[in-house]
Amino acid sequence: MERPKSISRRRVLAAGTAGIVGAALPIAGQSADQAARPKVPADPTKVQGPPASDVGGRSPFERPKRLSFSDRRTSSLTPLQDLDGIITPSDLHFERHHGGVPAIDPQQYSLLVHGMVERPMVFTLDDLRRFPGMSMIRMMECSGNGGRVYRREGSQTDLTPQQIDGLTSTSEWTGVALSTLLREVGASQKATWFLAEGMDAAVMTRSVPMAKAWADALIAYGQNGEPLRPEQGYPVRLFLPGVEGNASVKWLRRIEIGDQPFMTREETSKYTDPLPDGTARIFSLDMDAKSLITEPSFPDKLTGPGWWEIRGIAWSGRGKIAKVEVSGDGGKTWQLARLDEPVLPKCHTRFRLPWQWKGGEAMIASRATDDTGYSQPTYDVLLAARGPSTAYHFNHIRAWKILADGTVKFGGAL
Amino acid sequence: MERPKSISRRRVLAAGTAGIVGAALPIAGQSADQAARPKVPADPTKVQGPPASDVGGRSPFERPKRLSFSDRRTSSLTPLQDLDGIITPSDLHFERHHGGVPAIDPQQYSLLVHGMVERPMVFTLDDLRRFPGMSMIRMMECSGNGGRVYRREGSQTDLTPQQIDGLTSTSEWTGVALSTLLREVGASQKATWFLAEGMDAAVMTRSVPMAKAWADALIAYGQNGEPLRPEQGYPVRLFLPGVEGNASVKWLRRIEIGDQPFMTREETSKYTDPLPDGTARIFSLDMDAKSLITEPSFPDKLTGPGWWEIRGIAWSGRGKIAKVEVSGDGGKTWQLARLDEPVLPKCHTRFRLPWQWKGGEAMIASRATDDTGYSQPTYDVLLAARGPSTAYHFNHIRAWKILADGTVKFGGAL
Repeated sequence: MERPKSISRRRVLAAGTAGIVGAALPIAGQSADQAARPKVPADPTKVQGPPASDVGGRSPFERPKRLSFSDRRTSSLTPLQDLDGIITPSDLHFERHHGGVPAIDPQQYSLLVHGMVERPMVFTLDDLRRFPGMSMIRMMECSGNGGRVYRREGSQTDLTPQQIDGLTSTSEWTGVALSTLLREVGASQKATWFLAEGMDAAVMTRSVPMAKAWADALIAYGQNGEPLRPEQGYPVRLFLPGVEGNASVKWLRRIEIGDQPFMTREETSKYTDPLPDGTARIFSLDMDAKSLITEPSFPDKLTGPGWWEIRGIAWSGRGKIAKVEVSGDGGKTWQLARLDEPVLPKCHTRFRLPWQWKGGEAMIASRATDDTGYSQPTYDVLLAARGPSTAYHFNHIRAWKILADGTVKFGGAL
Repeated sequence: MERPKSISRRRVLAAGTAGIVGAALPIAGQSADQAARPKVPADPTKVQGPPASDVGGRSPFERPKRLSFSDRRTSSLTPLQDLDGIITPSDLHFERHHGGVPAIDPQQYSLLVHGMVERPMVFTLDDLRRFPGMSMIRMMECSGNGGRVYRREGSQTDLTPQQIDGLTSTSEWTGVALSTLLREVGASQKATWFLAEGMDAAVMTRSVPMAKAWADALIAYGQNGEPLRPEQGYPVRLFLPGVEGNASVKWLRRIEIGDQPFMTREETSKYTDPLPDGTARIFSLDMDAKSLITEPSFPDKLTGPGWWEIRGIAWSGRGKIAKVEVSGDGGKTWQLARLDEPVLPKCHTRFRLPWQWKGGEAMIASRATDDTGYSQPTYDVLLAARGPSTAYHFNHIRAWKILADGTVKFGGAL
């Protein structure tokens, strides 16, 4: 990889070593602007710091926040532009709920599995934890993610990655395979669908094909090492790798095994995609390959021409990311980005490409391809297939515009 | 894998579906014991829950804690028995510091790289973030981890995984390769060691071979997606994959390139291993292969004979975990455990083995082998090699004892 030579030569010091060491020491309270920041010692080596703590907190200089589209706050968005790597801190994982976050005592929790089974059974949390378990690092994405830019609502220039695509996050999920419970209850081989029901105020319900239950569905109790966070379904949720988030029903209390979809409110009034010909896609569960550049992005400003690393995340609900291509010239040419290890199926994958900004206006964009061979479509291709009124599954190629002064704005579709 | 048939057949319900649905609903305030727990609605489906939040918190039923060996709290221990998977939540990552946790303003931060270089340079945090970056999921372990049980201090039965081995954690670390900075400053090819210096009150310093700098040393600014936590070196630390934690100097302010070790206080008074023949191991940086069963463990109690899943973590500072063997009979026979994906180099790896407790006393133990072919030694082998007075690098095989009533106690060495 070419070395970004322009980065820091300007910082070469002519001073001797002693002077350089002095320059490396922080000096507090230099200006009115800095005075408004949290106070820190001018020389931390001269002050004994606080001891170890029971539970840690963030630096007072770091205040990440999940934003929400409206005051009703039925969802919140992960601040993707503030994050590196692929793991989303659990307290910044996006939220979406239809009846708020229920408070549940884990000792009183139970899960019923019934319907087309030999033995209807109720499992406590201890029962679930006792089964052979598994962990997997996987992304989750709301099927409405990216709708604001697809529908061109509001500003289409002053949007952050969080505002464009913040309804996706990655966690390490731990639980028991749903297939293990299906064998325990003796699920019928004739069953084709199951219903998952939550115990929130919306009694959220979705139908899912049994093929998914047998393949990789998880009854999850753990997230990033610890018990699920309340807004992620504490104490137990369904987790369907690669599937639109709403079907991974949280606060899971009931699974019913059947031989047809249950046609709940959430799969007729919502989560169905109207098509241009008047029909609708229904049970469009899998999330397609997608990518987003998170750096540089609005409201960054490039301080000058030279080498910058373009960074972002790519993911697909259908498998692993095979490649991410990045364009620095509005889609005329594309270069292969480097992917950080590990590249996991149905998971965010971090991509990086050093890019030389020569000054002047530029458009940068990314295009993900998954290991099924599928690549992100252009906006026009997606619009022709789905029409303007579709409300879910937006995965077209997006761009950022670099203005001549280095200001970065959302650039819309290529 | 054999299905643990005894788990939940006892919970099969004879009642009809309506009755089962009723039984699945939680009922609050059933007993005096439960009354002391946080209050929750008897039926959460009847109560609108709170909306989305800026930053999430834990369920009031979950109160994990880092413990400390002493009131001085110069270290704290990850509650390994409370965790699933491999990612350690950042606020539960173990700590060790020699002068407390310094408070540092990232805008005033800088890193000096000098010594045997063509161009001594100072890098701000923005400079470091602008270089091509990388993320990696890797464990960290304090070289003193496990010393209490090696030296047989205090109780040797009533110890949790946290108390035995809590000075190890895993995070996704993000930063710039130290090799990138070495090329930027023009580090001499004749250099053989570098010094890393922190800006804490201890001015922590360690010498590290240049081979490690060129191989995989990271100048890290990110942890689990977000900026480093204060106790992990905010805003910038050295991270040396697989190496004893103290050498991954936190609050990093200076790197000096040289042609011999710097022989600092921390590599003479500490972090040197006395040997039985009167000599000492010095710069014993790599952490050896090791494993720990985290479930079942003290103070768990098995509620009855039957199938239980033995779970734990294994790791090696020298590469990937190749296999973990688990014994249910005190080391007479061993079975291969299943490893959760991903299995990453120099990283915690979660292992699992279904195990049938037939009642009566039993000893369970785990033994990790890494991809160099090295396996964890027995206590006697380690003691013969290192002697009783060594203070670091304890990786012998440990066991848990199951008593006839199901109580689990630490079982010492095999």
